[in-house]
Amino acid sequence: MEISTIAVIMAMAEEAEPFIREMGLEPVEPVFDSRLPMEVFEGKAGTADLVLIVGGKDPRHGVDSVATQPATLAAYLAIERFNPDLLINAGTAGGFRARGAEIGDVYMGADCIRFHDRRIPIPGMEAYGVGSYPVPEFRGLASALGLKRGIISTGNSLDMVPEDLERLTANGADVKEMEAAAIAWVADLYQVPLLALKSITDLVDTETPTQDEFLANLALASEALQEKLIAAIAYCAA
Amino acid sequence: MEISTIAVIMAMAEEAEPFIREMGLEPVEPVFDSRLPMEVFEGKAGTADLVLIVGGKDPRHGVDSVATQPATLAAYLAIERFNPDLLINAGTAGGFRARGAEIGDVYMGADCIRFHDRRIPIPGMEAYGVGSYPVPEFRGLASALGLKRGIISTGNSLDMVPEDLERLTANGADVKEMEAAAIAWVADLYQVPLLALKSITDLVDTETPTQDEFLANLALASEALQEKLIAAIAYCAA
Repeated sequence: MEISTIAVIMAMAEEAEPFIREMGLEPVEPVFDSRLPMEVFEGKAGTADLVLIVGGKDPRHGVDSVATQPATLAAYLAIERFNPDLLINAGTAGGFRARGAEIGDVYMGADCIRFHDRRIPIPGMEAYGVGSYPVPEFRGLASALGLKRGIISTGNSLDMVPEDLERLTANGADVKEMEAAAIAWVADLYQVPLLALKSITDLVDTETPTQDEFLANLALASEALQEKLIAAIAYCAA
Repeated sequence: MEISTIAVIMAMAEEAEPFIREMGLEPVEPVFDSRLPMEVFEGKAGTADLVLIVGGKDPRHGVDSVATQPATLAAYLAIERFNPDLLINAGTAGGFRARGAEIGDVYMGADCIRFHDRRIPIPGMEAYGVGSYPVPEFRGLASALGLKRGIISTGNSLDMVPEDLERLTANGADVKEMEAAAIAWVADLYQVPLLALKSITDLVDTETPTQDEFLANLALASEALQEKLIAAIAYCAA
């Protein structure tokens, strides 16, 4: 595939900072309506144009625009405005010790991306709720970069209630995070290939509360993420 | 307020059908990118332009595009494309018998609209997760139309796990549904007044499973909804 434009979507400023720094990305003056919180950065990856859309500060609450509603809009805006040949969603996530995850691992989304918090027990609606949007295989990428491959499952909450764990298990999830399935829904509508890279900040099947591990490991995981993200971009743009 | 354009967002075809029929709305050829599922209908309300955006069929799963991800995008598209003076989100919902709800009641969203399934226990993020997007008072509207006033709380699931109920209670929720807070988030960003009208299909604090009551009462509740929706539009456009 000839890649002339790559669009990367990240939710949090702290997740994006190492990537912006290492790639020397420059902020772009408002590309979208100025009332939207998303921030846009641009640069080059070889001969390809590289654009980064970060969730931005929520004007009402003053924190990063995380979770699936801003992610939905960021994906739409990325595709409609930049018509990328490749969409990448990069971010931090929870992993499962029982499935071999360790803090700082970077996973590549494999097979499909699912929701674990859209429970719609109506005939026909159940599968829609889960989504199961397929992602390309990106053959050779995971082994070349030392990425783990796994199924990503998305919900709007950082924590996990028992029903979430049941659904994560049913989804075959290796990675639990808060944006990818929303982005995968839009990418699937537009048939834009989506590469999801998720760096593990916390192990959700251990005793430590996710929020404590998340905050302690966010900087470390964001550094691990930018290394793999930059390598993946170089691999795809080559 | 001078109203020249009203945009209505509804998730399900069956919810929208009585409204389309009674208002004589006409389908419009693709207004948005044809890869998006949303369907658009147009008509008049007095001298005001009236546009209806319905979620449309999900191309992968063949069912109506319900829940907050399509609702986010529908709200963005409605505002960016039609620049409405008033946004209305109309749909069916669950109510609480303990708070006086009955099947077929139509509630008007009062005070603010919240999420009950975005649990983000990080300092500063908690309130962002709940959202609490204020809605205008629409003084006189509820009493003129015989609407109940109540707080609407939104989640991506039709059912309710114990944690959802705790959050719904903390939110002061009278109405539980699956789209309004996402639409309220976008409306809040753009400072477009949002009127939310929700017709009760099921009582979530009774023994009958939501999905059974929902399916049994969907047509009835959609008829009750269109009556109040048309009256509200006439009231606002007058």
